[in-house]
Amino acid sequence: MIAFPTDIDIAQSAPIEHIRNIAAKLGVLEDELEFYGKYKAKLPLSLIDEKKVRQNHLVLVTAITPTPAGEGKTTMSIGLADGLNRIGKKAMAVLREPSLGPVFGMKGGAAGGGYSQVIPMEDINLHFTGDFSAIEKANNLLSAMIDNHLQNKDATIDLDPRSISWKRVMDMNDRALRNIIIGIGGKQNGIPREDGFNITPASEIMAILCLAKNFEDLKAKLGNIYIGSTYSGEPVFARDIKAVGAMAVLLKDCIKPNLVQTLEGNPVLLHGGPFASIAQGTNSILATKMGLSLADYVVTEAGFAADLGAEKFFNIKCVTAGLKPEAVVLVATIRALRHHGGVKKSMLNFPDAQAVARGLGNLEKHIDNLQKFNVHPVVAINSFPGDTAEEIQLVQDVCAGYGVKAIISTAFVDGGAGAEELAAEVVNIIQQKQSNFQPLYS
Amino acid sequence: MIAFPTDIDIAQSAPIEHIRNIAAKLGVLEDELEFYGKYKAKLPLSLIDEKKVRQNHLVLVTAITPTPAGEGKTTMSIGLADGLNRIGKKAMAVLREPSLGPVFGMKGGAAGGGYSQVIPMEDINLHFTGDFSAIEKANNLLSAMIDNHLQNKDATIDLDPRSISWKRVMDMNDRALRNIIIGIGGKQNGIPREDGFNITPASEIMAILCLAKNFEDLKAKLGNIYIGSTYSGEPVFARDIKAVGAMAVLLKDCIKPNLVQTLEGNPVLLHGGPFASIAQGTNSILATKMGLSLADYVVTEAGFAADLGAEKFFNIKCVTAGLKPEAVVLVATIRALRHHGGVKKSMLNFPDAQAVARGLGNLEKHIDNLQKFNVHPVVAINSFPGDTAEEIQLVQDVCAGYGVKAIISTAFVDGGAGAEELAAEVVNIIQQKQSNFQPLYS
Amino acid sequence: MIAFPTDIDIAQSAPIEHIRNIAAKLGVLEDELEFYGKYKAKLPLSLIDEKKVRQNHLVLVTAITPTPAGEGKTTMSIGLADGLNRIGKKAMAVLREPSLGPVFGMKGGAAGGGYSQVIPMEDINLHFTGDFSAIEKANNLLSAMIDNHLQNKDATIDLDPRSISWKRVMDMNDRALRNIIIGIGGKQNGIPREDGFNITPASEIMAILCLAKNFEDLKAKLGNIYIGSTYSGEPVFARDIKAVGAMAVLLKDCIKPNLVQTLEGNPVLLHGGPFASIAQGTNSILATKMGLSLADYVVTEAGFAADLGAEKFFNIKCVTAGLKPEAVVLVATIRALRHHGGVKKSMLNFPDAQAVARGLGNLEKHIDNLQKFNVHPVVAINSFPGDTAEEIQLVQDVCAGYGVKAIISTAFVDGGAGAEELAAEVVNIIQQKQSNFQPLYS
Amino acid sequence: MIAFPTDIDIAQSAPIEHIRNIAAKLGVLEDELEFYGKYKAKLPLSLIDEKKVRQNHLVLVTAITPTPAGEGKTTMSIGLADGLNRIGKKAMAVLREPSLGPVFGMKGGAAGGGYSQVIPMEDINLHFTGDFSAIEKANNLLSAMIDNHLQNKDATIDLDPRSISWKRVMDMNDRALRNIIIGIGGKQNGIPREDGFNITPASEIMAILCLAKNFEDLKAKLGNIYIGSTYSGEPVFARDIKAVGAMAVLLKDCIKPNLVQTLEGNPVLLHGGPFASIAQGTNSILATKMGLSLADYVVTEAGFAADLGAEKFFNIKCVTAGLKPEAVVLVATIRALRHHGGVKKSMLNFPDAQAVARGLGNLEKHIDNLQKFNVHPVVAINSFPGDTAEEIQLVQDVCAGYGVKAIISTAFVDGGAGAEELAAEVVNIIQQKQSNFQPLYS
Repeated sequence: MIAFPTDIDIAQSAPIEHIRNIAAKLGVLEDELEFYGKYKAKLPLSLIDEKKVRQNHLVLVTAITPTPAGEGKTTMSIGLADGLNRIGKKAMAVLREPSLGPVFGMKGGAAGGGYSQVIPMEDINLHFTGDFSAIEKANNLLSAMIDNHLQNKDATIDLDPRSISWKRVMDMNDRALRNIIIGIGGKQNGIPREDGFNITPASEIMAILCLAKNFEDLKAKLGNIYIGSTYSGEPVFARDIKAVGAMAVLLKDCIKPNLVQTLEGNPVLLHGGPFASIAQGTNSILATKMGLSLADYVVTEAGFAADLGAEKFFNIKCVTAGLKPEAVVLVATIRALRHHGGVKKSMLNFPDAQAVARGLGNLEKHIDNLQKFNVHPVVAINSFPGDTAEEIQLVQDVCAGYGVKAIISTAFVDGGAGAEELAAEVVNIIQQKQSNFQPLYS
Repeated sequence: MIAFPTDIDIAQSAPIEHIRNIAAKLGVLEDELEFYGKYKAKLPLSLIDEKKVRQNHLVLVTAITPTPAGEGKTTMSIGLADGLNRIGKKAMAVLREPSLGPVFGMKGGAAGGGYSQVIPMEDINLHFTGDFSAIEKANNLLSAMIDNHLQNKDATIDLDPRSISWKRVMDMNDRALRNIIIGIGGKQNGIPREDGFNITPASEIMAILCLAKNFEDLKAKLGNIYIGSTYSGEPVFARDIKAVGAMAVLLKDCIKPNLVQTLEGNPVLLHGGPFASIAQGTNSILATKMGLSLADYVVTEAGFAADLGAEKFFNIKCVTAGLKPEAVVLVATIRALRHHGGVKKSMLNFPDAQAVARGLGNLEKHIDNLQKFNVHPVVAINSFPGDTAEEIQLVQDVCAGYGVKAIISTAFVDGGAGAEELAAEVVNIIQQKQSNFQPLYS
Repeated sequence: MIAFPTDIDIAQSAPIEHIRNIAAKLGVLEDELEFYGKYKAKLPLSLIDEKKVRQNHLVLVTAITPTPAGEGKTTMSIGLADGLNRIGKKAMAVLREPSLGPVFGMKGGAAGGGYSQVIPMEDINLHFTGDFSAIEKANNLLSAMIDNHLQNKDATIDLDPRSISWKRVMDMNDRALRNIIIGIGGKQNGIPREDGFNITPASEIMAILCLAKNFEDLKAKLGNIYIGSTYSGEPVFARDIKAVGAMAVLLKDCIKPNLVQTLEGNPVLLHGGPFASIAQGTNSILATKMGLSLADYVVTEAGFAADLGAEKFFNIKCVTAGLKPEAVVLVATIRALRHHGGVKKSMLNFPDAQAVARGLGNLEKHIDNLQKFNVHPVVAINSFPGDTAEEIQLVQDVCAGYGVKAIISTAFVDGGAGAEELAAEVVNIIQQKQSNFQPLYS
Repeated sequence: MIAFPTDIDIAQSAPIEHIRNIAAKLGVLEDELEFYGKYKAKLPLSLIDEKKVRQNHLVLVTAITPTPAGEGKTTMSIGLADGLNRIGKKAMAVLREPSLGPVFGMKGGAAGGGYSQVIPMEDINLHFTGDFSAIEKANNLLSAMIDNHLQNKDATIDLDPRSISWKRVMDMNDRALRNIIIGIGGKQNGIPREDGFNITPASEIMAILCLAKNFEDLKAKLGNIYIGSTYSGEPVFARDIKAVGAMAVLLKDCIKPNLVQTLEGNPVLLHGGPFASIAQGTNSILATKMGLSLADYVVTEAGFAADLGAEKFFNIKCVTAGLKPEAVVLVATIRALRHHGGVKKSMLNFPDAQAVARGLGNLEKHIDNLQKFNVHPVVAINSFPGDTAEEIQLVQDVCAGYGVKAIISTAFVDGGAGAEELAAEVVNIIQQKQSNFQPLYS
């Protein structure tokens, strides 16, 4: 038996087109591109066309509660975009950029998997186009200005060092920096205080960047960052210590979405990567809008399961940006349903229809939640080798009870070809206008 | 009176060519370039041609002991490269990349000045092509692996936390990070220890990168980094904690020199930026060799005055790389000579021939030092508005006593046109083979 | 109107007898005393006579839930002891030593109040006989030995610095020492780790001293102190780092009870002072037993209200020592009952019978709790100027429902004379054997 | 061969008199004593009689540069005091109290040695009469008040936390407390800053106590303690933060000298113990004056060799107190002279006359130094088993050249009997008025 190749083997052996050719598919001229090598480019914000944003179609990929290994949302998003292209639609995925921290940690990169990947994989997983580095610098410049302000006794703001909640960041899994004491070494080396480093995707600047409407709005949001308080309890903001201009100039390129490609040569935008745990967990509004300006169908995803990820996507991102998703793909695996049915980790790869039946409550609740937003979901069963027909039938039967289809996807193994049926159903939902998205509150 | 424009006004109002056109002047094809936007590109190491390195001509720009404002070595280097092109030579400057720290500090950027600048100035002074960021990441990945090793009690190396001399870096003027305590917050957050952040140009990795002969050599040097010692006093190196592979992959693009242009459209390589105070203070060996492979004349500089900068350049860089500089430009200003003659800061702009006469001892000693390396220097008087003919004559007379010419340069105000006479003398020295460089020791 | 004198005025203007005369009242010869000046003496443990301990009578003073100002347990204990002497009984109070921390804080000293005080007040509130200082030294010697063990790499115990739960102590209100980082300053100055100082009464050694049966038992308990764990999770105790001998020698005098006197010249033993919040909150077992060996009636108290203080006294101290209290005085104030009835702080000094009626539930519950231990309490109403007959009658009526007397005490204003009625009832309860103490569990 | 008993064996097996009997020898009534147990007492300052201070005779014991084991100054001082008593003089030693730190460290106690010791040795080496503890408390109360001041933002003094030079103290060898960070743990737990603990003998309060003329002078000196500076650079003193009253009350007993006895039952005063390394290294002025008020001859010592110890004693203590030493004993050992002659540590116990001859330069210089103060020294050779007649003769010959006698003392082995000849010479020097002390500067 020949082993299935690793992600990196697939990514590195794949043919890759010059990014100018990918841009051409979107009608973007070479002169509008800012190349980062041959296979990555930044796109100017001027490509955003609000009229097209309203006309074109936004598809959200979300998931049921996963096992620790994840349900494959990114893989499914890429496969679906490829699938849509295969059935003749002008479609693209618009996704988050990965953090370097987990790359060197246990979790690995975050550019899809199998034959549904974004390339050049290694570049994307390392420095990419410098966006995370720019956010890190802007974040830490604010920190340096805060400490400089404390040190400067001509400073007009009576900032209490113990009140400062703004932390430094580094795009690294580095637990020893979580809680630190800074400013020691005597009078010339600052004011001693407790501080700490978060990982860069947890920077408030990352969250801000992904919610910004344009560069001016980004600057306004940077100015509104809460730093700490004065000794008398008055709040102090980034604008109060004159940090906005310098932070913004560090972010002037970072605000532009990044164009790359799938293994099948379809365009993908990667932009921003706020953690879903503490922030909104979705790519930038600007990238989503640019995707909708350049393609008829945009596939995007939201971190974590639907109860957290889709909820934030709908109530925060869509409301802020005025976006209206027309289809929602709810990714599920038979493995995860077995897990929710009580199967132990070591047995997850073995068929167990009874466990799947018990675990389906999780899927049902997510469908129910999504329907409250007045969208019509389709369930994508991310296929694994050990899945049995009996188990799949159980899922499809339950979904049918909600008027929802459950479609098998083999995008991991087959690329876009494995997601054609799913793509067709997504198009069907959109063309039949089965959804009329409404946020729960606004 | 119309004020002389600021550096940034000049830089931003200058016409700028697509970097593919600059590369074309060097005979480098577009396909060989890795673009970073339209005006920056990385060049592949395959362009280095050792035969041409030996044939072509290397010119060092150094300086007398400066005033705090500096003597203008970078400006002179750029002006000289432009001047050489104006008198018909195929020449380029090969210089250091600036650190972001001083950009937001008092000293400002480091891409030349007046009409002898490198552009795109703002990009160069900010993230540029991500080299400093990559070095920062590689440096801090090693730190994270060290702390991870301490935390992991299955680790085979009995590393004493108090012995660790490897510090983290950040490309920021951030005094509060100079001395810190890390790893606090209980058992899950690391081993408490004293640490600190240096500025990125002070990272040993920066020094290593600039001395590396190729990627393999870089990896070997990374492995040799001393981290600290075991409890029993045995030295521990980066290779011992298996950090080399990950560090190297983070530096795979960083090792490639960056192509930009002067205001006059002549090619410039910027690569590496180790501080002269604690490291060698010159750009990478690889960039210097690439310059010598692509142009007949390469102008480079070394940080600080000649006693420190030229000395390190000769004895460290030239010896390591087998380079043989054929001309040396010793930059001086009348202002600095007044300063060395005892004039107070507030009076430095006023003519004072007696002070210049007293201050010339500084210039003489630098000439004397340089001649010990068996090179023939030319003194470049970096012209300032208040310089008098009497003062200049004093300089020229003293230089004549050493068989050395002292030539006025107005490159700051006039660009390459202001350095034509200097360029001609540099060519003259080289063509007449007046130098036969020998290091003091090897 | 002449203001009532302050505690310190009363204490300093009172006549005071040489401590040898006080000892003589107990039948203790001068040669058995270790003087600390003329008015304090330590007594040898050899004076403890277990037979007399069993024969003589132990009275506990406890209280209802107090206002922040306290209910006056110590004052009542001293007044009761004086009152017992006044009605012809050989009685003494056996109480805790005060901590220096609160003396310089807001709460002030802890040697009773008004005309029911222990003297020499100032000495008692400052260094007294050095007991707290000795405990501090023993505690901190253990800390120093722990850090020395960490520093000494020939040490046989692989102690994990992050696991160390043993903290240093200082008898001082010093918040800046609560959380500290120690061991910084390089290799010669220890292993960096998080530590902190508790106040001395919170030292485990204080708790141990007050539960020790004799010097050998103290040493055994010192050896059992848990310090932290090895890297592999094994517990480490004080005995493991050979700290017991040195700690014990520092405590050799500290273990001996201290004899002082009331303002009325009756003997008092003060010994030990563990905080009631985190430890048992009562004086040493050895002092209580010595009191019972030297006097027919011993009055003692337990910190905090009866639900915490009496409960710990009964279930911890009495069970450990085999003591059998025969009477319990439950101190209440009309002020506190108003407080429990909902009166605001600013109005607490004004009569409010309805509030007292509402607040009596607190008193009832404490009576109920005490009766579960099979002891017969008497309520002592600590008289304040604004108390009305109506309010007092309410208290007495409710107590009568439990078969309990509520007796007014004016010991603060009148000394022992103000507690004679209370003393008589205590004697009555004991002589009629109304109590037969049983712990709730053992 | 029977081994010579250890110091502690000698001390514990010696008969000891009640301290009231020792006081009686000085004419001090029992009622004037504050007992600390039976063998220690504090004496009231009212016993100081300035007229007797001027009449009676002060003898300083100092030493040549010692080996690490010390030259035996304390032993010699005690032996000399006993010796003076043996030849019929009313004499007493007045010495420093030992620090607890070295007791548990390598150096051991500091109450003399062999048969020239002060007893009760164990008490003296542990808590003694609480003086060190009181100094520690006063020192640390000031620290707590400083940190409280920083925390209290209504404070009127704009004290810069980084400027604070006042450190905490603990009487413990505890290297991990030398450099610490305090005030961490959030807003309620103080202002983070660098601090550290010194050992108690290094407290400035120890130095102050030993230079105080009376309690009022002590308070004035406490008020003058420099704490740090304001942000604008103005000095801040202890009096500025209202710390003096509380510190002084903690020192009210500590200021009184402590009476103990030698093994031969002669009175000794021990009071104060500032380290010679950073402070004056001698006991309190008050104790020295009290000694001179109660005895005809007072023997005192000064820490370290004569060039440091005697110099500070003369120029600081004697000048401050108006004292006039009439004799100086310079202690030397043959071992130390061998050491100064170049003999290695392992060979120090073996006779080597040539080395002694070479090492005598050290002794000569100390004699020379002492003579500059216009005092007439006598050299005391502290006898050791391996000393040879030839070596001793060498010493005596060299001393004779300076007009100085060198007398063998066997006080360690023989007690006062071994120092009678030395005592006689001291009396001789004083009666013949061979000294007329003059400080080098004043």
